[in-house]
Amino acid sequence: MEGHGYGDVKAVAEEVRRRLSPARFAHVEGVVQSAAELARRWGVSEDKAVLAAWLHDVAKELPPEALLRLADEFGIIFDDEMKHMPQLWHAPVGADLARRDFRVTDEDVLSAIRYHTTGRAGMSALEAIVFLADLIEPGRTFPGVEELRRLSREDLNAALLAAYDGLIRYVLDQGGLLHSATTAARNDLLLRQS
Amino acid sequence: MEGHGYGDVKAVAEEVRRRLSPARFAHVEGVVQSAAELARRWGVSEDKAVLAAWLHDVAKELPPEALLRLADEFGIIFDDEMKHMPQLWHAPVGADLARRDFRVTDEDVLSAIRYHTTGRAGMSALEAIVFLADLIEPGRTFPGVEELRRLSREDLNAALLAAYDGLIRYVLDQGGLLHSATTAARNDLLLRQS
Repeated sequence: MEGHGYGDVKAVAEEVRRRLSPARFAHVEGVVQSAAELARRWGVSEDKAVLAAWLHDVAKELPPEALLRLADEFGIIFDDEMKHMPQLWHAPVGADLARRDFRVTDEDVLSAIRYHTTGRAGMSALEAIVFLADLIEPGRTFPGVEELRRLSREDLNAALLAAYDGLIRYVLDQGGLLHSATTAARNDLLLRQS
Repeated sequence: MEGHGYGDVKAVAEEVRRRLSPARFAHVEGVVQSAAELARRWGVSEDKAVLAAWLHDVAKELPPEALLRLADEFGIIFDDEMKHMPQLWHAPVGADLARRDFRVTDEDVLSAIRYHTTGRAGMSALEAIVFLADLIEPGRTFPGVEELRRLSREDLNAALLAAYDGLIRYVLDQGGLLHSATTAARNDLLLRQS
């Protein structure tokens, strides 16, 4: 991590704490813990996983107007689906905030932040770990979370598939919009397994 | 319907019977019945609905190689997703068979055949009716079919949404691939309602 030794991560965490509510910060701490564990388990850089975890929700509590303004500033183009899904905007905007405000240059870390809400086809192991850590961190209590924790330790692809399925079912239950990146990611995983 | 009076529909039905197994033909007869009812209920041309219903599965029992050869002949380009979903090929190929072998020229009828497996964003009432009739015909027995029959009579958009949700859940349960046209169609419906 260019410029991100252990000491710098403490500074990152403090700045993230400043930008988030205590409840959200507690979630982020949980994601950091789970991401570190999964990184060790799967032989992925723990430094990168921890940095991405600290920053994944850095833009989460910005109001939609601020997210739109930042997206514009960063030259982020929302596709037709994203335009209608403000709950997803914090992920791509957060990645560019990580780059600008936290001087993160590692593309894999930035992608892990950028795709942590929808997933995407062809996620790297680091991206998968941050995506899963967000769901299985100790504060999560939804039905099936224990099974997802177990799968995350045993089979990263099986865990990802279960996570996508769970995410899609959750969106259906809520009557919400489903971004096609998630179904594309799920199809991609199934095709790699067959 | 150009060239499709009542007598011609009988000839269409006979040719469809020739191309399908008895069990499949019984399903098609059910779809014709349900499509006719829904067409009357929603003020859509019953002739068109019946013709599309007779022909919606005309290519269903062709083997994958034959479907691929016909797709090639018709200049149908399968997108990256469709390439991996042979169970969907009979719909677009069936539409072009309807045009070539049954001289159907009505674009709405052809679209109802073409999109009857995935649905699509912005379906016409006729397309919606054929899509729903395929699911609610009297031979169908899946959990929730009675609710879908009721919704189809009461609220076409609510029925479509329930149908998409059910289709997506079914694909997840089966561990199958989910074509993004279906999620796009579902998003489109939700956005029209909001």
